[in-house]
Amino acid sequence: MNFSIIRYILCRVLEIEGVFLALPCVTALIYGEKSGWAFAATMALCLGIGFIGKRFRPKNPVFYAREGFVTVSLSWVMLSLAGALPFTLCGEIPSYTDALFEVISGFTTTGASILREVEPLSRCCLFWRSFTHWLGGMGVLVFVMAVLPLAGGYNMHLMRAESPGPLVGKLTPRVKQTAQILYGIYLAMTILQIVLLLLSGMPLFDSLTMSFGTAGTGGFGILNDSAASYTAQQQWILTVFMILFGVNFNVYYLFLIRKPKQALRCEEMRVYLGIIAVAVLVIVWNTRGYFVTLAQSFRHVAFQVASIITTTGFSTVDFDQWPGLSKNILVFLMFIGACAGSTGGGIKVSRCAVLFKSVRNELRCAMHPRSVRRVHFEGRPMEQGVLHSIEKFFAAYMLVFMASVLIISLENMDFGSTFTAVAATLNNIGPGLGAVGPAKNFADLSMLSKYVLMFDMLAGRLEVFPMLVLFMPMTWRK
Amino acid sequence: MNFSIIRYILCRVLEIEGVFLALPCVTALIYGEKSGWAFAATMALCLGIGFIGKRFRPKNPVFYAREGFVTVSLSWVMLSLAGALPFTLCGEIPSYTDALFEVISGFTTTGASILREVEPLSRCCLFWRSFTHWLGGMGVLVFVMAVLPLAGGYNMHLMRAESPGPLVGKLTPRVKQTAQILYGIYLAMTILQIVLLLLSGMPLFDSLTMSFGTAGTGGFGILNDSAASYTAQQQWILTVFMILFGVNFNVYYLFLIRKPKQALRCEEMRVYLGIIAVAVLVIVWNTRGYFVTLAQSFRHVAFQVASIITTTGFSTVDFDQWPGLSKNILVFLMFIGACAGSTGGGIKVSRCAVLFKSVRNELRCAMHPRSVRRVHFEGRPMEQGVLHSIEKFFAAYMLVFMASVLIISLENMDFGSTFTAVAATLNNIGPGLGAVGPAKNFADLSMLSKYVLMFDMLAGRLEVFPMLVLFMPMTWRK
Repeated sequence: MNFSIIRYILCRVLEIEGVFLALPCVTALIYGEKSGWAFAATMALCLGIGFIGKRFRPKNPVFYAREGFVTVSLSWVMLSLAGALPFTLCGEIPSYTDALFEVISGFTTTGASILREVEPLSRCCLFWRSFTHWLGGMGVLVFVMAVLPLAGGYNMHLMRAESPGPLVGKLTPRVKQTAQILYGIYLAMTILQIVLLLLSGMPLFDSLTMSFGTAGTGGFGILNDSAASYTAQQQWILTVFMILFGVNFNVYYLFLIRKPKQALRCEEMRVYLGIIAVAVLVIVWNTRGYFVTLAQSFRHVAFQVASIITTTGFSTVDFDQWPGLSKNILVFLMFIGACAGSTGGGIKVSRCAVLFKSVRNELRCAMHPRSVRRVHFEGRPMEQGVLHSIEKFFAAYMLVFMASVLIISLENMDFGSTFTAVAATLNNIGPGLGAVGPAKNFADLSMLSKYVLMFDMLAGRLEVFPMLVLFMPMTWRK
Repeated sequence: MNFSIIRYILCRVLEIEGVFLALPCVTALIYGEKSGWAFAATMALCLGIGFIGKRFRPKNPVFYAREGFVTVSLSWVMLSLAGALPFTLCGEIPSYTDALFEVISGFTTTGASILREVEPLSRCCLFWRSFTHWLGGMGVLVFVMAVLPLAGGYNMHLMRAESPGPLVGKLTPRVKQTAQILYGIYLAMTILQIVLLLLSGMPLFDSLTMSFGTAGTGGFGILNDSAASYTAQQQWILTVFMILFGVNFNVYYLFLIRKPKQALRCEEMRVYLGIIAVAVLVIVWNTRGYFVTLAQSFRHVAFQVASIITTTGFSTVDFDQWPGLSKNILVFLMFIGACAGSTGGGIKVSRCAVLFKSVRNELRCAMHPRSVRRVHFEGRPMEQGVLHSIEKFFAAYMLVFMASVLIISLENMDFGSTFTAVAATLNNIGPGLGAVGPAKNFADLSMLSKYVLMFDMLAGRLEVFPMLVLFMPMTWRK
């Protein structure tokens, strides 16, 4: 293991975080808030570490997949440890464990909160809280690659370890350029959403923070009732953008290079939109009687479905009050998640679709043992290696899920709450059902449970393996 | 598809069922019960169909895997349709849907009941109810192969489709002989249990029915409180035999041919016993305070753990009252299930162990992409084909599970009840938690839910694929 290069990249990551901490400082200046000093102090610390770390360039440029895994998972841990400092320093979240939970929930775009009320927070804290979503959504190391002149062959290893989805494609031959294009699209779409929200009459601060939360598919709002008090028009804007940010960004790239036909042919996007349509229709039927008009019903159901499948986690109603079928559809949408290569979490639509197809294929083979058929996805036959790594991902995911449920069981909550507390964090959603439902929060959990759920959030965002690697003795051998 | 041979085997299966229906007839005679006529009538019907069917021998001997799948799944459906008749004819279970649920629950060794009370049933009904467990445990077609002179190459296809586990090994080169050995071991162990229970002072009728329930890992008792009112000694006998019937029968065969060293080296059995030991210790710790003495605590916990992991479903206490961790450990044991090649259900210990090992292997490969390691199980490297069919089984299993939960959600029970109603039937356990817990039953569910759970019980017993095959249009093409 090449520790010197890992240390070097970690310092650069902290430096970048230091730069971004300027934003809440500016917010504090504008609103004249005292809490700003905590952000300034953390900023100084991060820049200081970055400055010192930069002076010790690594001599050994060897960088393999395992360095990629460890760098990515440690970067996320470091980012969170530093990002949580200001909340505790300024005293707005006195417990450092809680602050860490909140910031990991932010960076991993989960949106699960330990705050009973968010409105008492200062503006600079609210801004930083929402901004972590935006930063975590597309990936911090992807950002590092987009802006820093990191030469060498290790870019691809970093990108593979941080980007969600079974197949990480380079849009262009150069990783740096791919990272720039992705962040370009991401920034452009975020700005478009901010403008539309402003035009709909939403105040600037709300527009910014809600757009960060939507773009990263995070879910932190700045009002206690999440998105319930916004107008119907604003809720529809949020719904549409949640769905858009859950689409594979390759689709937008194809539009960008004027290949709209190829973009629309994307199988994952079609399946994703199909699932949303079916889920909305079934839940609208199942919740008839819960809403006054059909328009209202469609608006709330579409909002909740988009929020859960993209793993954003905003809410306009307390869906814990809905009938069983609707709730359980939402629980399964939590697991399916958004498209690979989007900012959303979960197992990803492409993985689920491939698993489904491979079961169908297995059935056919069972009927005709001598016939050899291959699973096709996106119009191409799947490579066996990819197929099997998807199946292994699924198994690893279930193992982490089960182990977490067992530990959270010590809380003695009901089965639905325990199950969805893990589902909502491992899939980076935010709210679950019951004691961790949209009208509740994670504040009352024990310290142990909070750390387990923090691990789950990171494992969910980094797709399990990079976090598990940290616990293998093999990793730390020279 | 060769329908004539399928029809022929189905008739032979009904004939065998007719022969076994003599047993409840004899019971009715001994106790002088009027309900006996219903069993006699059904017996006559089955023997009649068998007699007619035998006269039309199939001309075409072609028999492939798909014929095997269809024959096995249709046999189980036919057996259940006929086996449910006596309950409705004699009026003790007036609704045919309920009778069918009860009998499918019997044959699939699930033990889930729609009866609020079992004690009012006549002795002949109770006997038949428990005997279906014994018959279903080792497999009905395995029995057919053991006793009937079915020549031809199709024995293996039938055995593969009916026997649980990822690898169906022939103990001897001839399938017929393998089937005879398996049934021989099964019968001998059942008799041993009956004798031990009699020696402990249990009445003959109780000893017989409880042994059938244990041997098949079924779970139908003849008392309303399941096994709670038996003595401590009797409960320990049940516990030990439940665990024994959950072991891979290959182990007993190895003992039989005097290879005890090889038998004790069986990795699946070691993992299985290890899981039981750990689960018992954790639950004893977690339920401290629920029992007066440690001996009592160990007895009840060991009973419940053995009952759930072997998917038997007897109970001595209402474990729905236990703390969250204990309940959720039981829920996960439901999924793990017993060993392959035993009479138990669930995913099977070997499949879980292989999945776990393949995740660990994937982690190692992720760290060193160029190293090629293979997953070892039972001391041998796993064939890739077997590994992938396990992964596909797991995926198919999850799909059936999710679809069932969504339909059962229409009942509007709490999440834990819905989830465990499906888990308990798909894994052939019996009781779940909450509304379908050990102190409750499945009587209040809607017709739709009952049929879905019946499908799940059959899918669980036949390991998913044979039942799914029935729903593929491909199957029914000429």
